[in-house]
Formats: sequence, C-alpha cells, structure tokens
Amino acid sequence: MTNSSGSKIRIGILGASGYTGGELLRLLAGHEGMEVAMLSAERRAGRRLGEVFPHLAAMNAPDLVSIKNFDYDTLDAVFCCLPHGTTQEVIAGLPAHLKVVDLSADFRLNSPAVYAKWYGKEHRAVDLQREAAYGLTELNRDVIVAAGLVANPGCYPTGPQLALAPLLGAGQVATEDIIIDAKSGVSGAGREPKQDLLFSEVGEGVQAYGVASHRHSPEIEQGLSLAAGKPVSVTFTPHLMPMNRGILATIYVRLANGASPDDLRAALRRRYDVEPFVHVVGEGVSPATRDVRGSNHCLIGVFGDRRPGRAILLTVIDNLVKGASGQALQNMNLMCGMPETAGLEQLSLFP
Amino acid sequence: MTNSSGSKIRIGILGASGYTGGELLRLLAGHEGMEVAMLSAERRAGRRLGEVFPHLAAMNAPDLVSIKNFDYDTLDAVFCCLPHGTTQEVIAGLPAHLKVVDLSADFRLNSPAVYAKWYGKEHRAVDLQREAAYGLTELNRDVIVAAGLVANPGCYPTGPQLALAPLLGAGQVATEDIIIDAKSGVSGAGREPKQDLLFSEVGEGVQAYGVASHRHSPEIEQGLSLAAGKPVSVTFTPHLMPMNRGILATIYVRLANGASPDDLRAALRRRYDVEPFVHVVGEGVSPATRDVRGSNHCLIGVFGDRRPGRAILLTVIDNLVKGASGQALQNMNLMCGMPETAGLEQLSLFP
Amino acid sequence: MTNSSGSKIRIGILGASGYTGGELLRLLAGHEGMEVAMLSAERRAGRRLGEVFPHLAAMNAPDLVSIKNFDYDTLDAVFCCLPHGTTQEVIAGLPAHLKVVDLSADFRLNSPAVYAKWYGKEHRAVDLQREAAYGLTELNRDVIVAAGLVANPGCYPTGPQLALAPLLGAGQVATEDIIIDAKSGVSGAGREPKQDLLFSEVGEGVQAYGVASHRHSPEIEQGLSLAAGKPVSVTFTPHLMPMNRGILATIYVRLANGASPDDLRAALRRRYDVEPFVHVVGEGVSPATRDVRGSNHCLIGVFGDRRPGRAILLTVIDNLVKGASGQALQNMNLMCGMPETAGLEQLSLFP
Amino acid sequence: MTNSSGSKIRIGILGASGYTGGELLRLLAGHEGMEVAMLSAERRAGRRLGEVFPHLAAMNAPDLVSIKNFDYDTLDAVFCCLPHGTTQEVIAGLPAHLKVVDLSADFRLNSPAVYAKWYGKEHRAVDLQREAAYGLTELNRDVIVAAGLVANPGCYPTGPQLALAPLLGAGQVATEDIIIDAKSGVSGAGREPKQDLLFSEVGEGVQAYGVASHRHSPEIEQGLSLAAGKPVSVTFTPHLMPMNRGILATIYVRLANGASPDDLRAALRRRYDVEPFVHVVGEGVSPATRDVRGSNHCLIGVFGDRRPGRAILLTVIDNLVKGASGQALQNMNLMCGMPETAGLEQLSLFP
Repeated sequence: MTNSSGSKIRIGILGASGYTGGELLRLLAGHEGMEVAMLSAERRAGRRLGEVFPHLAAMNAPDLVSIKNFDYDTLDAVFCCLPHGTTQEVIAGLPAHLKVVDLSADFRLNSPAVYAKWYGKEHRAVDLQREAAYGLTELNRDVIVAAGLVANPGCYPTGPQLALAPLLGAGQVATEDIIIDAKSGVSGAGREPKQDLLFSEVGEGVQAYGVASHRHSPEIEQGLSLAAGKPVSVTFTPHLMPMNRGILATIYVRLANGASPDDLRAALRRRYDVEPFVHVVGEGVSPATRDVRGSNHCLIGVFGDRRPGRAILLTVIDNLVKGASGQALQNMNLMCGMPETAGLEQLSLFP
Repeated sequence: MTNSSGSKIRIGILGASGYTGGELLRLLAGHEGMEVAMLSAERRAGRRLGEVFPHLAAMNAPDLVSIKNFDYDTLDAVFCCLPHGTTQEVIAGLPAHLKVVDLSADFRLNSPAVYAKWYGKEHRAVDLQREAAYGLTELNRDVIVAAGLVANPGCYPTGPQLALAPLLGAGQVATEDIIIDAKSGVSGAGREPKQDLLFSEVGEGVQAYGVASHRHSPEIEQGLSLAAGKPVSVTFTPHLMPMNRGILATIYVRLANGASPDDLRAALRRRYDVEPFVHVVGEGVSPATRDVRGSNHCLIGVFGDRRPGRAILLTVIDNLVKGASGQALQNMNLMCGMPETAGLEQLSLFP
Repeated sequence: MTNSSGSKIRIGILGASGYTGGELLRLLAGHEGMEVAMLSAERRAGRRLGEVFPHLAAMNAPDLVSIKNFDYDTLDAVFCCLPHGTTQEVIAGLPAHLKVVDLSADFRLNSPAVYAKWYGKEHRAVDLQREAAYGLTELNRDVIVAAGLVANPGCYPTGPQLALAPLLGAGQVATEDIIIDAKSGVSGAGREPKQDLLFSEVGEGVQAYGVASHRHSPEIEQGLSLAAGKPVSVTFTPHLMPMNRGILATIYVRLANGASPDDLRAALRRRYDVEPFVHVVGEGVSPATRDVRGSNHCLIGVFGDRRPGRAILLTVIDNLVKGASGQALQNMNLMCGMPETAGLEQLSLFP
Repeated sequence: MTNSSGSKIRIGILGASGYTGGELLRLLAGHEGMEVAMLSAERRAGRRLGEVFPHLAAMNAPDLVSIKNFDYDTLDAVFCCLPHGTTQEVIAGLPAHLKVVDLSADFRLNSPAVYAKWYGKEHRAVDLQREAAYGLTELNRDVIVAAGLVANPGCYPTGPQLALAPLLGAGQVATEDIIIDAKSGVSGAGREPKQDLLFSEVGEGVQAYGVASHRHSPEIEQGLSLAAGKPVSVTFTPHLMPMNRGILATIYVRLANGASPDDLRAALRRRYDVEPFVHVVGEGVSPATRDVRGSNHCLIGVFGDRRPGRAILLTVIDNLVKGASGQALQNMNLMCGMPETAGLEQLSLFP
C-alpha cells in the first residue's frame, strides 16, 4: 500500500504529545501505507517518543522536535494537533503541497461571524476557513477526497450529526426541539494539567459542564442546518464521566411527517448499510461506549418514546478514535488515495 | 433524644444485607434516638453483621436472623428493604402498632391500575396501597407525620420531583415536553450478582437502559401530575455510570407563562429556603454528584437554555441516601416525632 | 463539650483549600466542642468555602483569607496544611499559646541529619523539630497529650507502624527483611494539577512510584527503630491506584523467637483491644480499603505464609482520615482535653 | 499467510462467551492466517456472537453452538476456554489431529501429586498432563513448536516467571526470599456473576485475596524451580484492583553471587533483546499496566533497593492478552508454523 511513486506516504504530526497525537501514532503504527516521519512537541522537544508515551515505546518513530525544526519538504501530509487559536496561523503558513487534517476547532465553522461570536475574536485565516472541507467522513466524502485541508469534526458533534443529518434531510424528524445530552470520557478534555481533571476530582462522580454554552453547539447546528436545508438550533449538554474514553449521546427528537421510530431505524440502516464504520443496532438494543472502545466505529440505536410522536436516538463513539484521530486518519486515507479503512481495522477492546 | 416513654425507638430492618439496609445501619449508628434492635436476612441468617458488611463491624448491632424469627412485639418501627413484589404481603401482615417505611416499589403507585400495568400483576394489598403516604419528605411532610406506612420514593424520582413539582404547581414550566436524562451509580441496581453489573462490564463505559420503559416513569408522572393539577407525562432515560453512588438528573423543560430561568431559580429558592436538605445552587453553578456523596442533600441548579423559552434543571443526590435510606430515615424521624435531621447531619465525602 | 472557660475551642486552618484541609472541615462540622474560626488559602483568598469545596457549602464556615490576615490571638489552636518546606518557618513564627497540629512532613523526622539527607537542605527550625511530638496517636498518646506541636504522621507510615511497632517491641518479628508494599488512592498526592495525576493518566491502571526512594521510608524506619530498640530498615514501595481514597499496606515479615502468626494476631489484639480506632480482624479475613472509607479506623489482618517462619500483615486506612485529617483531629482532641473520638464517630461509607 | 495446503487454519473455540474467549476473537479478527470456524457456549448456544459480545458485532464469525454439536473434523486447531476441572476430560476426548491450546489450569502443573494437593482431587487425564507443553512462550518455545497440547500459563505466573527465570538460571538472585506482590484487574476473575465482583463491591477500593493460598503459587514455583535447578518456593499475594485489565507484579528478591541491580537489568536485556513481546525498561523507569493495555507486551523494570543486596523487579502485562488469550495465540502461531507475532501486532491503548 503506497502512493503513486511506490513509496509510503510520509506523515508529520504537529503537537504529537497530547492524547490525539498519541492516538494517531497508535493507529499509524498499524498502517502499511503511511510512515511517521516527523513529530513536533515544543516542551518535549528532544525527547524520545517512549518517554512521553511509554505505551508507544515499541513503535519505530522519530524523536520529538520543535515545530521550528520541521522540514516540511520531506513530508507528504500533516496532522495538526495544536491548540485552538494558534492553529490557524500555523496552517496558513504550511507549504501548499501538504495534505493537512486539522484536529483543532479552528476550521470547523465555515462562517467568520459565527467563529468570531463563539471564540471572541476574528479568524486570522478566513480564506482557508472557507476552503477547508468539513471532515465528517460519511457525510462529506466527496469533498474530502479532493481537499487539501480537512477540518476534523469535534468529538461531540460526530455521533449526533451521523444520526440526525440523514433524518433531517429526509424530513423524518422535526427541526425544532432537538435535545442532545452527551456523556464523555475525560480524555476529551486533553492532557494539560488542570485541577478539575484530576483523578480525585472526577472519580466517583458525574457533572454537566458548559451548559448551554459549549463551543461544539454551533458546529452541530451548522451540520444539521445544512442537512435540513434550514436553520436548526439544538440544546446540547455535555457531561464529564469517570472513564477515560467514549461518548454516548442521548438524543431526544420529535417525529415529523408521519415517520415512526421503525422508519427512522430503517432509514439510517439504508443510509449506512455499506459504511464500514457506522452501524445501526437492532430494535431494543442500547449501544454502550464499551462496544466501540479503541475502534473507529459509531453505533446508532433508535427507540420509540412512550410519548407518541417522539423518539430517542443513542450514538456511541470512542472520542479519541471516531471522535478525533481515527476519523482524521479515515479522512487522510481518502485524501491520499488509500483504502479508507487502512489502519482502522481494529475491533473494540472489551472489557 | 427518646420517645415519650423516655427510651429509644426500637428499630427492625427487614432485608438488612443489601445496600439500602447497610446504608440505613450506617446512618442509624449515628442516631441518638433510635436503636437497631432486629435485623433480618434470609440467606445470611445467623451471621454477624460484620461478616456481611465489614465496614459496619465496629457497630453495636444484633446478628442477622430469618424474618420468621422477627419478634415484632419488641419493636416500635420497621424499615422494609425487601424485593419488589414480595414486600406487599409481608407488610400487610405486620402488627398495627409498627411504624413502617417501605423502601421497595410496592406502595409508591397509588393507582391499582397503574401498578398492574407496570408490574404485570394485580397488587395484593390494595387497601394498604391506598393508605400509604408517599415519602418525598419535602413535598408531603404533613401526611408523612401522621402516617403508619410510608412508601419511600424511588431513587430516580426523588431529584426530578423536588425540582419540578413546585414549578409545575406555579405554572412556570409547561406540562408537555419534560425530558429527564438521568445518570446513576451502580449501587442503585442492588447487590444481587448479575453479569451486567460486574465491574468488568460497567467499568470504563456508559450505557442507557430501560429506555422508554423504566418503572420509575409512572412514579415521576404521578407526582408531577399531582403538582400540576393535570396529567403530566415525561420522557425518562436512565443511564448506568461507572461509579458507586450518585444520581445526576439533567432535566429539559419549556418555560410557561412568561417565566424566566431566573424566575425558576427564585421560586425554588423560596420554596426550599428553610429546608435542611434541599439547596438551590447559584447561577452558573453545575452541581456534581460528588457534592452530595454520602449525604442526604439534594442540590438543584437552573440554567437558561440558548434557545429562548427553555431551561435546563440539574439535580444531584446520593441514590443510597436522599434516594433511599437517608430519606427513609428522614421520614421515620417525622413519623416518630424525632428531629427530622437526626442521624442525617453528615456532610458529603469528597474526594 | 467545651474548654475550661465554657466556650468552644476556636480553630484555624492554614492551607484550607487542599484535600487535607477540606477533610478537616468535614470532620470539624460534626465536632461539638470545636468551632472553625479562620481559614487561609492564598490563591483563593476572599472566596467562600463553598466555591472551593461545593460539598461543604452547607457548612457554617468563614470565608478564606490570606495567611497574612490571620488573627492568631482569637484562636486556640491551628491545623497547618501547608506544603512541605515552607511549613517550618510559618510554624516557628506562631504565637506560643496556640496548640498546633502540622500535617506536613516538616516535623516528622526528629533527626536534623536525616531530614537534611532526605529533603536536600537543612531544617530551618531545628529546635522545634526536636520538640515536636510524633502524632501516631495510639503509640504516642502520653506525649501528644502534653504537646504544643504535633507532627502528624504521613499517610503511608500510619498503618505499617501500627501493625509492626508492637510486634517489634515484643521481639515477635525480625528487624531484618521487612517489606512494605503499599497501594494508595490518588488523593494522597494532593490537589495541585499535575499531568500524572489526571484522570486519564491514572484511570484503568496501576504503577509503582518512588521505588526505593520515597520520603516516607525514613519516617517508617524512625518509628520502627524506636519500637525495636535498634535500627530497623525497611523496603517500602508505594503504588498509585485508580481510586480516590484508601491505603492498603501488604507487609511481609519474618517471625522471630518462635512466634506464630496466631501469636502475632493475639499480641495485636491485646495491644489494641481498648482502642476505638484500631481493630484486628479475624483469622482468614482480608481487610479492604472500602471497609474504612471515610472513617478514622485502621484494620489489621494477620496471615501465616505458606513458607514456615514468615507472616503477612495487612493494614488498611483511609489516607485522608486516619492517614491525615482524622488522626490530626484525634491528636488535637487529646491536646485540648476533649474526648479522643469527638468528631470521628462516623462509620465507613460503603459502597 | 496460510497453512501448507494453502488455506487458512480453521479454528474452534470451546467456551467462547467468557472474557478469554472474547479476547481471542478480537485478536483472531486481525489474523490473516486463521479463520474462526466454530464457537461453543452452552448457555448461549444458538445466539449470534454480537449478542454475547456487542463489541465484536462487526466481526464475521459463526453463531454459538453447544459443544456437543462441534464438528472437530472440519477444524485444524482448538482453543479451550472451559472452566478448570471439566476441561481435562473434554481435551482427553478430542481427535488427535487437532492442535490444542488450553487456557484453563488443568494442564499447567506437571506433577499429579501437586495437582491433587492444590485442587483437592486426582487428575483425570494424567497422561495428557505429562505430555502437555507449558506455554510460557519465551521460555519454552522449542517444546511448544512441536507440541500437540499446550497448557497456557496463568495470568499471574506469566510476568514473574519471565523476570525471574533467567536470573535464577544465572544464579543472580537467591532462591530463598522471593516475594511476589501482584495487583490485577477484575477481568482476571472471569465473567460469572459473583457478589464480590460487582462494580459496587470493587469500585473505589483494593483488597488482597487468596493470601498464602492462591493456586497460581505452585505454578510459579514449578517454573522457577525448573529454572533454578532446585526447589524454589515463593510468597505470592494477589490483590484485586478497581480496573478492568492489567497485572503489575512487584517482586522483591535478594541478590546472589555478587550481582548488582544493573547486572540483573543487563542480563534480562540480553535474554530478551530479540523478543518481540518482552522488553526491559530503562533504569529508573517504573512500568505501568496502562503501557501494555490491550497488547501482548510484557515490560520488566529493575530497581536496586535502598537496602544493600536486594532488588525490586516490576513486571506488567495485560492479563487478558499476554496473561491469557494473546499468549495462547502466540503459542498457536508457533504450533501452526505461522509467524509468532501474527494477530498480535497491536500497540497498547492509552489512555
């Protein structure tokens, strides 16, 4: 599995010492068509990968370097795992020959005004913002294949958009009254030390955060509005769970145009029947995050509510795989002409 | 702190070897006006308490006996922690002088028809079912004080009813479109060995269960309908969390009659201002289950949604305390003329 | 319960925003003879206690102030929960009328040379270091009662010393070949944000740390040498566990002078028979940290090894209670002439 | 990757619905030279695999059948994941053409007398017991390659034998005074519902079990005695941890023949230098179970003790991979002439 010149795709990762960087490396280690050629990490520059990620010590990978020592000419593609805000200028300065998948939030919103409203400042790479393809693979594959820059979706928006977009597109659920109650493992909050992410603060408890104000809200609404063909606004509440990985989204919708819960399930089955990573579980089955731990799969369940005219959708992903690095690799595979599933064949780890 | 005859209230616990029984014992150990006089546990009959609950080994308590050896004449009051279904006949056979708080579901629903629908069989103590006082203390104190039999509320219904009943009573939230998304620790599922409650099945994951079919739904609706003065039906989804204790309920409501989220918070504050165990947290504060771990407190938070006309209520309790044994003791205190907070003064355990 | 003048003991806590400070407050809330009068926290000065510790919001406590605004004249006693190293100078500057229990490591080692070796610098309050009473209550009660400054033991040294000191004193275990393998919850590492204490780093894993170099080693050896009447050195390995609270120490010893494991158990029973907080469990019983969660109890188990002439001792405590704040309060009770168990009567929280 | 006839090895799994069965399936799903052809599970016979293991729903695997419907003629090899005790008769009845790896304890001990002592009854397949190759791959590869029946090692014995056998063989550690303190995730206890394995019993706590009496003790001693060339007995204490996977063994040894801790590390490095799955970490590095989660790797760390003449060895494995199903597949690869690492290339999952 190689590119047109017969050699492997040479990959660089900017910001390789966080959780999404580490997860990309884990997946790339099993990818026969890509080669990890360069890794940056400012505070860890000069360190071996195994010092930062002992679980990757057995991997054949280069040492970490400063971003200013990155030799982009030798690379074919770059994953960008830098913090929100600083990413946009870094990417604006990258050579044009590079395929780029950005895992930050900087290019997810395609409206400068919406970006400015939610991030409190003007975007500094507006042209790129307009050009970037939104990387929800199953919903935007045609655009991603041809893109030079893909904005990888946020972890929370991935599952709900996969479940809702086809149903909104078909008019089977109402555009009003969508409520998304999401439960996430702690790794989604990153590897920077913060008091409220300490084990002793999170263990044996659950808490909502960012109530009515989380920045993934406009991203979800952008995708759903596009699917519905008209503005959709949602109520979105994320919760921090005492677990490392996984997101379960419990989604409450009102049925539209006479659709039944069975109709919804059937429609989603038809839509995702040929997809390798999105699966609709059977009637009465409640998907669990443990079913997708470590894998790139998204499971979707559909339940009728006791109250007529309503349904409950359940989606589970691993926030670091389909919710971040796995989907990023899925996108990069498409951009590089590789099989979409390369490096992503692993089944879930249970228990 | 004693009863009218100057001696301590003599307490029996039927079904003392499960989690609610153990929690009652922990709380009663610190109660100066009550004395644990008799404990039943069929399969553990003859064992010392410390064998079944090593954490209670330091407690001065009688050995476990079979229920058929219970000498009710020597007791003043009984907590009944037996399984649903078998409880009703046991309680129907108890001597009339006993104060009884039942922690099972058998007497929570006051309609024989609703009971039969949800439990699939006729109630076998219909008269008692009608007589039993519903033990949500803050909402039904006057009745509880005079009751001989109190049906202690389910763990899930407690928080949502405390938050919603006053608002429905005041017409500040709409009776339609109430959605309750609840997250519970595993102890709520009891101590019987089941595969899906094993550590390896629950750890590092989250899952919804009983979607649109959980038996706490009619109990919630019974209380809210009473408060609203008209039928209320709700969407209720429980989730199993990788933690021992705690329930967080995230409640989505539509505002009514021009009420604002601030109005809701103010109304709840007025309602619970003098209550020792129910507290409304400040604007912007998201209550966490760790804030109430081991205590009898319920915290309520109120957020306005981004979407006009909607609000999000958050309630947290410890499912074994305010959600079971703590509230049971609170009720028994009232029934016995003791200070309501006796044995329940402990603050939360954090971390 | 008051002091000689009929009023409550007025307590100040220096460094109240960490875990040991919070735990002291939880315990003091149930103490009828002490009153929390002043709390310091530099970075949180001006905040209400409930902002730093939501689980204590229901407590009647003063706001946090800077240490420089502490009015010591109005206080009777002080708990010092400041970081190691800075503590010694703060305590050296306290007025003489104050009873002080120090929860840092600064006064635990009574030898200036040993302190300098393990902490890499000279002690700056050597006189006080010599005066301070070592606060392992059950082993040093007579001295603690009369002390003005008590050095509260480290969390790891508490259980092993309680188990080993009486046996070494009686010559029943050999002074050589003592191995202490300890497993601790994460709260023992404090509340400062550090990457290796993040939930995602600790969850679902276990790791040894400070192997052959942990600073609690000389503290353990100081106590055991005193008990044995000759130098004792130990192998001590701490491990970080994915849980909030609790320390289990598995202690491997060689029997001496013909003692059997049953002799050891009997000797420990005799020694601790009248103690309210130290208990020897029955033959064949393996004490668990959950048995003491939230309580001031220490459980000790004794097993004979399969290999003749050897035994295995097991001790469990809650690292924040008997391993820190609980024992600190136990000591302060003694110093202030209060009942030793005041504020410490709570049983363990399980599950 | 196929067998001599050009087709894939056809695999059957007896007892496929437990954790070791599920883990074998996860690994086999990524194995290009083996095909899962038949699966048994008595109580789940007739069910699809995805009903028993939702995380494997995406796998192409046959439905579960009763063992009495197993058609051994169509199979090349069998993994046996049946309970201890019943396994020996099942395997004794298998056709001779089958390669068999047994994951139970039935064939691990090669002495009928030792077996009878520890299991309380005579072995019922003594000839097979003598024939079976012990499957600690790195230490017994030559025998395994030629074996028809391999007894896969227990989870606890794997790491300690890998660390100690070479050192005992070289006379670098004393045969006396070996102490193994092991900490295991809960999945090692299997999937049968038992009260003491419930989440609420295990969460937030740690406990030793099987103190001085665990059945893995004679297995460890058998391997170490063989390596040392004389009888070795050990002290072995397992502990149950609140995590799903992983075993950390902390091993305390006395140095022999003038060896230093550095000598031990160097010797282990030489021994395992070319091994794909056993790695010696650097000086001062403490291996963590999270470093090997989901992988077939074993990490070994070596520390000098503060007390002269002693060292501390640390080994970590995933109990379900190198400690069970991974090593079983590693052995089966050897028995079938496949590359030893086939299906086992996955790196660890962190966080």
